[in-house]
Amino acid sequence: MLIDRRDLDFQLQEVLGLAAMTCLPRFHGQEPGDYAAMLDSAYTLAQQHFLPHAATSDREEPLFEDGRVILPEVAAQSLGVLRDAGFFAVSFNESDGGLQLPRMLGQACSAIFASANVGYHAYAMLTAGAANLVLSFGTEQQKLLFGRRMASGEFFGTMCLSEPQAGSSLSDLRCEARLQPDGSYRLRGTKMWISGGEHDLARNIIHLVLARTPGAPAGIKGISLFIVPRIRVQPDGSLGERNDVHCTGVNHKMGWRGTVNTVLSFGEREDCEAWRVGEEGRGLAYMFKMMNEARIGVGVCAVSLGYAAYRHALAYAKERRQGRPLTQRDPSTPPVSILEHPDVRRMLLSQKAWVEGGLSLVLYCARLVDERANCTDEDGREAIEQLLEFLTPIAKSWPSEFCLEANKLAIQVLGGYGYTRDYPVERLYRDNRLNHIHEGTWGIQAQDLLIRKIAMDGGQTLRRVAGLIEDSITACAGEGDLEPLARQLGVTLKDVLHTAAALMQSIGAGAPERAMLCATPFLDAVGHLVVGWRWLEQARSAQAGLESGASSDRDFYLGKLAAARHFHANDLAALSGRLAAIRSLDVAALAIPDGGF
Amino acid sequence: MLIDRRDLDFQLQEVLGLAAMTCLPRFHGQEPGDYAAMLDSAYTLAQQHFLPHAATSDREEPLFEDGRVILPEVAAQSLGVLRDAGFFAVSFNESDGGLQLPRMLGQACSAIFASANVGYHAYAMLTAGAANLVLSFGTEQQKLLFGRRMASGEFFGTMCLSEPQAGSSLSDLRCEARLQPDGSYRLRGTKMWISGGEHDLARNIIHLVLARTPGAPAGIKGISLFIVPRIRVQPDGSLGERNDVHCTGVNHKMGWRGTVNTVLSFGEREDCEAWRVGEEGRGLAYMFKMMNEARIGVGVCAVSLGYAAYRHALAYAKERRQGRPLTQRDPSTPPVSILEHPDVRRMLLSQKAWVEGGLSLVLYCARLVDERANCTDEDGREAIEQLLEFLTPIAKSWPSEFCLEANKLAIQVLGGYGYTRDYPVERLYRDNRLNHIHEGTWGIQAQDLLIRKIAMDGGQTLRRVAGLIEDSITACAGEGDLEPLARQLGVTLKDVLHTAAALMQSIGAGAPERAMLCATPFLDAVGHLVVGWRWLEQARSAQAGLESGASSDRDFYLGKLAAARHFHANDLAALSGRLAAIRSLDVAALAIPDGGF
Repeated sequence: MLIDRRDLDFQLQEVLGLAAMTCLPRFHGQEPGDYAAMLDSAYTLAQQHFLPHAATSDREEPLFEDGRVILPEVAAQSLGVLRDAGFFAVSFNESDGGLQLPRMLGQACSAIFASANVGYHAYAMLTAGAANLVLSFGTEQQKLLFGRRMASGEFFGTMCLSEPQAGSSLSDLRCEARLQPDGSYRLRGTKMWISGGEHDLARNIIHLVLARTPGAPAGIKGISLFIVPRIRVQPDGSLGERNDVHCTGVNHKMGWRGTVNTVLSFGEREDCEAWRVGEEGRGLAYMFKMMNEARIGVGVCAVSLGYAAYRHALAYAKERRQGRPLTQRDPSTPPVSILEHPDVRRMLLSQKAWVEGGLSLVLYCARLVDERANCTDEDGREAIEQLLEFLTPIAKSWPSEFCLEANKLAIQVLGGYGYTRDYPVERLYRDNRLNHIHEGTWGIQAQDLLIRKIAMDGGQTLRRVAGLIEDSITACAGEGDLEPLARQLGVTLKDVLHTAAALMQSIGAGAPERAMLCATPFLDAVGHLVVGWRWLEQARSAQAGLESGASSDRDFYLGKLAAARHFHANDLAALSGRLAAIRSLDVAALAIPDGGF
Repeated sequence: MLIDRRDLDFQLQEVLGLAAMTCLPRFHGQEPGDYAAMLDSAYTLAQQHFLPHAATSDREEPLFEDGRVILPEVAAQSLGVLRDAGFFAVSFNESDGGLQLPRMLGQACSAIFASANVGYHAYAMLTAGAANLVLSFGTEQQKLLFGRRMASGEFFGTMCLSEPQAGSSLSDLRCEARLQPDGSYRLRGTKMWISGGEHDLARNIIHLVLARTPGAPAGIKGISLFIVPRIRVQPDGSLGERNDVHCTGVNHKMGWRGTVNTVLSFGEREDCEAWRVGEEGRGLAYMFKMMNEARIGVGVCAVSLGYAAYRHALAYAKERRQGRPLTQRDPSTPPVSILEHPDVRRMLLSQKAWVEGGLSLVLYCARLVDERANCTDEDGREAIEQLLEFLTPIAKSWPSEFCLEANKLAIQVLGGYGYTRDYPVERLYRDNRLNHIHEGTWGIQAQDLLIRKIAMDGGQTLRRVAGLIEDSITACAGEGDLEPLARQLGVTLKDVLHTAAALMQSIGAGAPERAMLCATPFLDAVGHLVVGWRWLEQARSAQAGLESGASSDRDFYLGKLAAARHFHANDLAALSGRLAAIRSLDVAALAIPDGGF
């Protein structure tokens, strides 16, 4: 059960206008048919090479023996097929060996693969992130030796930030890199939680590592970025000897077991060759370019895991016959499909509202990436960039929470069966629990949004987002069924802005801890607002489709309108109480003595 | 990490008045010191014999080989220790071989064991339920041969309701029992999801099975209750030959793996001996006596799993040093414990509010059981019974939802570590996901509360609950810090009553499906109200303790007051929006065409 194709086409074409991308300079010469073919290919490949191994790669956890990681053989084969079909290279520049297709299309393909087998997909996602980093900030030689070879999928990549003592707190990184006479570095230290840190899935693994140079200032200003190949790469591109970086252990996770997660030790023999990327002290700034895209990628995974579970639950609900309507209790009548029970319908429609709403948000972010790449004027690019930076913590976190809730409900629809490993919904639930943790935790995203993206920005970007939402609301005036949705969204918008002002005032008055108590519930609330807006846009497109589209699509469009209405009447309407609670800025959690917990 | 002893003493003694139970006729001659000794013993036993095997029994899932279930040997030993210490018999009548201690104390012991190892605890919980059923409705001989021997823990028990085609819909049960000339029955059919259905942990397993007699009416009126021993029991009490009931498979679950879950086949050789309990056609009514207690028992398990995780998260947060306060970013200063970060404090205080609030609810229900057992007048007993029946779906469901949320946050506090099997929080999260499913799903509890306990009752019991809550509110008048809590509770109470009226009106107007769309959110909301009330009562006791108690308890009482305030200012305050959304009775989930999902 993958992301629904009809939904993907609707969101890409009817809501976000993928076909029109072909008119933009970056995508000159491409045809809408190319995009459809790419999606066809992604579905075929995901069905044939990813989905069949999802349960196996959960059951057969990566083994760690004699410093080597052993994965099921089929993993290398499947990822080889992915590479050969060009899926590592979808969005990279043609000049870097990529296909230079729209990011929107690339993320849609990611969603297809992640919904089939998130453990395999993660290798490609991490590699794309690492490639992007080298291609953006590396020297020409680094691009040639490392960047392009990751973009093609020949080499795989990782990002090495966390250390055992420093997860969310990057300013405390200790890994050290010493400059050598030949311009290379020798790196020493331990990195923790490194996904894809050791395996034999590709010819080489390129680690992108944050480390300090001797004498660098304390904190994040002393951090630089380094390339550390698992196998050294000669200047002519040929592979040399094994570098001094070793896996010292793998983590045994609750889920997402298809992706090996490692502890890496660099320079145990004082011979870990590393190459600095860009300037000294700017490592974190570079890494965050990758992190931001990775964070949206995490949102895509969270959506996909919830989406796959929703489709399983829906299929089960249609088939499973049990019970009778409340108004027809005669036990001699045959049982009905559980899809007829109101509580099951509610659970399914909530799942639909969350996963399709989450998908609409991450695809919208991908379109912003495309718009930025096509924008020729500096100010315009900067404005898109700010919008994207504002939405990034939301696109990462909101699906990690609410598509996980969808997973929880998918299990509930299947009842006892859903709690067994005979059905995939329990695995998808376990997989999705990771997304709130990696690439910046829930709390880190919340702090990023409230402190950096709103308070330090003086609320400027928030007001721009509000403007975009108001435009959508205005466009619904007199539009019959859309008007009540637009009205609810307007109420929620006002309420969120009011709450943001209260939080900013608290921060401005020198009490950031007090506001920080509410940062996470506030992040979730802004997420609801933004997803509610994307649902209004989906509803507008569905309304247009209903008026002009094929009659065979009627149920599809009615389903979209029902999901939009459900989200607005339930999730958005319920938010008013939560926002009022946030505005009360209760300090019980600060006031409680440590011994009182 | 078990249920906190100080908290348990506070709730049992200071809030619920356990010591005063010794004045009641049923507990005549008992001393408060006996109760304390029982708790001491439970902690010792849980620490020594349950906790050390919790992770092992998750890792080493029950094996099924040649029709036999194989469990780690230590399980039988540990449960033997539990039995020998009298913990199977805690609340049973002395005349049935029990200790006849208060149910409140029994549930407190259950919470201790469940927080240590829910998989082992479940065998005792199921056995107590089955014993209770036979001792309540069986013949003298059945009590002697089966009931007392389960009450002592010599035999274990199960309850066999579900069949492959009938989980929530018991009216469709097909299992059949035919009367024999000697007064016994021969039973035939398949039962599904039977916890503890096959093992060698005890001398015998007594299955309590729902089945139909030939010619019985369709639906629930045709269901009778039967005793089916795994090994036949002779009239003199000695064990005879193996009965014709066999395990045909075990379920591979996401969690709660210490308890084997089986498929049972009855009468494959047409020779499954069974004994009817009570009258024909009253099977479900009897079973529900056990189910109601089992449901509160499920609530106890859900609380305990969330509680154990909270204590792990708290211990981790105190030890883990990382990051700095927002107002002190100098990277040369040492990192602080993460307990100092507002977002971590919020997560921990929410966990505390949910798990200690859940505990207060289930212990309150246990006290009602004790009050009922001591009430000599019929009307009084009936009134207590109604209150208990009203609270049962809440005591089962609310902790299954919000203590699971506590588990989710406990993982979050530990970050990446929490997602690994090196720490127990991921296991506790997986374990707790079951509680919304077994002994009547979330949706079944919601329907029970809204349709049976409120609408069909004409709102009478709801008004009585409201009266009790109002009494607590009134008692806080002029009580300084308690007044704002009481005020919030009053607002929520009014809001819930208003919403209940809207739902009852919809049901009365012949649109139960529409109301049923909101039944689950409404159940959660009533749960918040009731838990908010129990928090107000905890706050009152804490305030009293603060004024008169030892200064060493000061932090403890301040912690209670902070948790109460946090729950009221956040969870209760946020409820207003959810209740407004419920009252809007949106029908999108009914209106959507099936093809629109």
